[in-house]
Amino acid sequence: MNKGRMEAFSDGVMAIIITIMVLEIKVPHGQQLSDLKDLIPVFLSYLLSFIYLGIYWNNHHHMMQTVRHVTGDILWANLHLLFWLSLIPFSTGWMGENHFAPVPMALYGIILLMAAIAYYILQSLIIKNEGKGSILAKAIGNDLKGKASPILYLLAIASCWVSSWIAGGIYTLVALIWLIPDRRIEKAIKENSK
Amino acid sequence: MNKGRMEAFSDGVMAIIITIMVLEIKVPHGQQLSDLKDLIPVFLSYLLSFIYLGIYWNNHHHMMQTVRHVTGDILWANLHLLFWLSLIPFSTGWMGENHFAPVPMALYGIILLMAAIAYYILQSLIIKNEGKGSILAKAIGNDLKGKASPILYLLAIASCWVSSWIAGGIYTLVALIWLIPDRRIEKAIKENSK
Amino acid sequence: MNKGRMEAFSDGVMAIIITIMVLEIKVPHGQQLSDLKDLIPVFLSYLLSFIYLGIYWNNHHHMMQTVRHVTGDILWANLHLLFWLSLIPFSTGWMGENHFAPVPMALYGIILLMAAIAYYILQSLIIKNEGKGSILAKAIGNDLKGKASPILYLLAIASCWVSSWIAGGIYTLVALIWLIPDRRIEKAIKENSK
Amino acid sequence: MNKGRMEAFSDGVMAIIITIMVLEIKVPHGQQLSDLKDLIPVFLSYLLSFIYLGIYWNNHHHMMQTVRHVTGDILWANLHLLFWLSLIPFSTGWMGENHFAPVPMALYGIILLMAAIAYYILQSLIIKNEGKGSILAKAIGNDLKGKASPILYLLAIASCWVSSWIAGGIYTLVALIWLIPDRRIEKAIKENSK
Repeated sequence: MNKGRMEAFSDGVMAIIITIMVLEIKVPHGQQLSDLKDLIPVFLSYLLSFIYLGIYWNNHHHMMQTVRHVTGDILWANLHLLFWLSLIPFSTGWMGENHFAPVPMALYGIILLMAAIAYYILQSLIIKNEGKGSILAKAIGNDLKGKASPILYLLAIASCWVSSWIAGGIYTLVALIWLIPDRRIEKAIKENSK
Repeated sequence: MNKGRMEAFSDGVMAIIITIMVLEIKVPHGQQLSDLKDLIPVFLSYLLSFIYLGIYWNNHHHMMQTVRHVTGDILWANLHLLFWLSLIPFSTGWMGENHFAPVPMALYGIILLMAAIAYYILQSLIIKNEGKGSILAKAIGNDLKGKASPILYLLAIASCWVSSWIAGGIYTLVALIWLIPDRRIEKAIKENSK
Repeated sequence: MNKGRMEAFSDGVMAIIITIMVLEIKVPHGQQLSDLKDLIPVFLSYLLSFIYLGIYWNNHHHMMQTVRHVTGDILWANLHLLFWLSLIPFSTGWMGENHFAPVPMALYGIILLMAAIAYYILQSLIIKNEGKGSILAKAIGNDLKGKASPILYLLAIASCWVSSWIAGGIYTLVALIWLIPDRRIEKAIKENSK
Repeated sequence: MNKGRMEAFSDGVMAIIITIMVLEIKVPHGQQLSDLKDLIPVFLSYLLSFIYLGIYWNNHHHMMQTVRHVTGDILWANLHLLFWLSLIPFSTGWMGENHFAPVPMALYGIILLMAAIAYYILQSLIIKNEGKGSILAKAIGNDLKGKASPILYLLAIASCWVSSWIAGGIYTLVALIWLIPDRRIEKAIKENSK
């Protein structure tokens, strides 16, 4: 089984998702600076989703480096992850155009939650396949970030009934948690090659 | 002849097809949960087509692993397959926006039928090229799934005159038949390497 | 210099061009078979352009196999070719939506002509770089197809003032000329490896 | 760490950015030559941005050839560059549709400036990582072009208050400066391999 093509396909899909999102930033009709004002929430939504997709690509890239064998299950778990990621442009657009209204904010969280679950399934299948002593199993350790994220998403979704700002804050927080360099896998690969 | 670039191009086209389909899920103007209701058939169509394209990518991936020589005929048979797959976003969009009306449902089946025929032609050319004792020939065996699918598509197309629900049921059934892990090629490769 | 990345980038751009063209086939509002009637010229334009892009990808693929060194000039000549190819979706859409009206038909020919010239420049730079005894120089020989195509495009563009049908016929003819398997490069590679 | 996948992802994103820009050239409703007249500024904007993205792809391609180790910092600096490049289609569309009005012209310059800064950050991180004696450090030397470009962009942005034509002239000038073959890295690689 050839992991190269699975990586290439995932890279392709993630590259397209991250780029077509920009099509949701519709060119305004006016030509004044004020015509851009309405686009601020659309732009902020785009920025947040760009970072999330960057994190997913980054983590996917690291995770796949530890994989030696690709099975049919892993291919489908990967497609499942790509399915939820592919809905990010839609929910980003809905959230941005409605200036962070509660329902679109909650849907955004649901999509992030489903993507996190899909990522967890993919990760578990790879660990199961590579064995408990695998690099990936060592690298993620107790997987604190992976476990905290879905809980934070759930909190954010619930908070939409109170205020969109709390949800927005939580989504930004989760992105920041992941943005902090995660040297776990890099470290585990290095230690393994000693 | 270099099969790498044919795989890369096919991956690229399939990745784009699977992703631009999401552009048919137009961001609704309202910001209420009820504004999403109209999108349910669009979403279900997207889900079905995502699975179909996932199956095609998966099967294509497996089939290409058995290929040693790529000829001009194979390159064009591959482009022929990509042509029919490229029409899936259009027919998915038409089907979804019209809430599974009979004519769009029938067109969807026709596109799936043409893609299945194109896949069959590609497969036959590869087997002809690799020889009867090739891994692919052994792997597909009597190719029951490959032969049943076009018949089921024809049934579904005909059933649109009676009820869209039958057609929808058949399309879902064919997808499920293929989703059931198909270990034929994996097995044949393993046996061959013994 | 690394030709792999130039191939990968060209594959990416050509895969996207061939696929976003399908976005010009707008989902009709009605749900009857008759609602598809207006799309027939759009569909035929798509089919023709798909074949042209398939031919370009195919020829590009073959040509690059003979290349050993990639220079800055070749990179830019390649981008120049991709530029003209990237305008094919626009002119295809204009031609299809206007049911093959003369001016859009002429513009389509102009884009094809410019792409043919760009291809010729790229080919000449590669031959110059690889030397007169290179595989590519032997393979294209007197390059009859390459020389006939621009003349036929010019004829087609001129014929738009008389009738769109003549132009359409010539565009189809050129596509067919190139579709006929072109074994020149394959043959030259084989002979070279003897 | 695997630089291949970072290159593949960057190629994918840049290929998509360069291609979806063409979607901003909307098919006109009329079928006369005069209907294309309104598209001239849109076309010129597209041409300029195509050249800029071609330059970025070209420079990125050369720079990555000198890289031996990819770190987490480099991955994120690369995504940061892709983020600003991904906004080029939007600002190109706004500039073209408003026939080079001052505010869209200034925004175009701001996006180019941010992309130039992002490229500089990426380049600095790579040099820091590869060491002062690295091929890249030698190749860029005093990096005159890299230092002149942001200053020229700032000048262009300021000049929008006077006349859009000055800004347009400066953007074209910067593109031409970079288009002039830049043999620095090619030369440095050659010298290094002696």
